[in-house]
Amino acid sequence: MIHVIGIGAGDPEQLTVRAARVIGRTDVFFLVDKGSAKSQLNEVREGILAEHASGAHRVVVVRDPDRDRTAATPGYAPAVGDWRSRRADAFERVIGEELADGQSGAFLVWGDPALYDSTLAVLEEVHARGAVAFDWAVEPGISSVSTLAARHRTGLNQVGRPVQITTGRRIADGGLPAGVDDVVVMLDAHQGFTALTGLGLHIYWGAYLGTEDEILVEGLLDEDLALRISEVRAQARARKGWIMDTYLLRRPAAR
Amino acid sequence: MIHVIGIGAGDPEQLTVRAARVIGRTDVFFLVDKGSAKSQLNEVREGILAEHASGAHRVVVVRDPDRDRTAATPGYAPAVGDWRSRRADAFERVIGEELADGQSGAFLVWGDPALYDSTLAVLEEVHARGAVAFDWAVEPGISSVSTLAARHRTGLNQVGRPVQITTGRRIADGGLPAGVDDVVVMLDAHQGFTALTGLGLHIYWGAYLGTEDEILVEGLLDEDLALRISEVRAQARARKGWIMDTYLLRRPAAR
Repeated sequence: MIHVIGIGAGDPEQLTVRAARVIGRTDVFFLVDKGSAKSQLNEVREGILAEHASGAHRVVVVRDPDRDRTAATPGYAPAVGDWRSRRADAFERVIGEELADGQSGAFLVWGDPALYDSTLAVLEEVHARGAVAFDWAVEPGISSVSTLAARHRTGLNQVGRPVQITTGRRIADGGLPAGVDDVVVMLDAHQGFTALTGLGLHIYWGAYLGTEDEILVEGLLDEDLALRISEVRAQARARKGWIMDTYLLRRPAAR
Repeated sequence: MIHVIGIGAGDPEQLTVRAARVIGRTDVFFLVDKGSAKSQLNEVREGILAEHASGAHRVVVVRDPDRDRTAATPGYAPAVGDWRSRRADAFERVIGEELADGQSGAFLVWGDPALYDSTLAVLEEVHARGAVAFDWAVEPGISSVSTLAARHRTGLNQVGRPVQITTGRRIADGGLPAGVDDVVVMLDAHQGFTALTGLGLHIYWGAYLGTEDEILVEGLLDEDLALRISEVRAQARARKGWIMDTYLLRRPAAR
C-alpha cells in the first residue's frame, strides 16, 4: 500500500489529524530529492516525520530526474511527459526494491496532491505498467491556494461566482481568462501580474506561505503595487536563494 | 479574537493539527443552526468539540436567518445580500454579548472557509460596522473539492492547465466554461451534468464526501452514466433526507 499524503503549504501543523495517523503507521517514506534549493522544505518534511512517524520507519531518498526546463512553450507538455516517464522509472524501482510484502510506503507531497503535483499521475503510470503490484490511497492536504486565502482572510470566489486556478505561463500568454472574476495564479516565475495593471484588479499576493518567512501584500493592482511586489519578491529570493509564491487576482463584482 | 476554522468535508480527522490546537484554547464556539436537515453534520461538529475543545468552553447556537431560496437567477445576489446583512446582525449580537474581554470565539466552517462560504464576508461586514471591536484569523480546511480529488485519486488539473471551480447554476445557464478542460461543480441541486453528455467528458462524482455514507461514481459521461448518477443521487437523498455532492468534469487533453 502506497499513501500519497498532502502535508500542507509549509506549516507542519497544517497536516491533518488523519494524515498524521497514516504517517504513524507507515513503514517506508519515499522522499523525492529536488536538490539543495528546496532544502528548507526538506527540513519541514523531516520535522513532520520526527513528530509523527513511528520511529521504526525508514526513509528512502528518490533521486528526481532533471526536468528539461529550457523547453519553449509548445514543447512544454512533451518535456513533462519524458520527465514523468523517467520519474516513473525511479518510483517503480523503489517501490519494487524497498517494500517487503505487507509493508506500506508513503510520498509526502507539498500542499494538496491534487493541485499541480505529478505524484498521482506518476503512480498511475507505474501501476499501469504492471511490473510492481500495489494499491494506493490519497490524503488531501491544505494547498498554498487555501493558505493564501486564509492569510488574506478572504474567500477565493465571490457570491455564486467561479474561481479559476491557473499557471503564470497561461496568464503571461493569454491574460486574464474570460468569464472569471477571481483567478489564482501558481507557478509564476515571471510575475505575470505586472502585465495586468490598470484593469481595476485587486491582488492578494503571498510568498513562503505557512512558514516563518511568509510575506503578504495586497491592494489595487496598479503599476506602483506591481513594482513593489516585484521588488519584495526579488529581495526575498536573493536572500533565501529560492521563492515560492502564489496570488489571487480579483475583479470586483459590477453589482 | 475570532477564529474561523475550516473543519474539512465531513471526516472529523480532516481537521488540521493546528486547527485542533486553536479549538483547544477557544472559549466560545458559535454554532450556526441550519435546521434539522443538517443534523448529521452538527453531530460531526459536536464530535470535534468533544475530542479537541478544552472542556471549559461554551457553545452558543446562532439562529441562521432564513434565506429566500425562491429568488430567480437575476435576484440571486440581492437575496444573498439581504440574508448576509441579517446574518451579520446575528453575528454582531453574539460577538457583543457572549465574549468577555480577552476571550476568544470560533466559527467552525465545513470544508475550507475560502470556498463558497459566507462566514468571512459576514465577519468583515460586522467588523466594518464598528459596533463591536474584534480581530479575526482564518484556519484553512480541506475542501470537498480536495476530498473529491483524493477519493478518486486524481489531480484537479492536467499538466500546465487550469481548473475552474464553479456552481451548478452557472453550468446549467452557460454550459462548460470556455478554455478550461477541468471544471469542478459545487452547489448543484439540479444535476447540470445531465445536459453535458455526449461531449467526451469524464465525470468524477462524489456525495457525502469524507463520511461513512460516501458514494463515488466515475466514468465517461454518456447518457447511461448521467442517468445512473441521477438515480444514485435521488435514492441517497430519499434515504438520508439531504445530499451534498460535488463533481469534476474533465475534457481529456488533445495531446
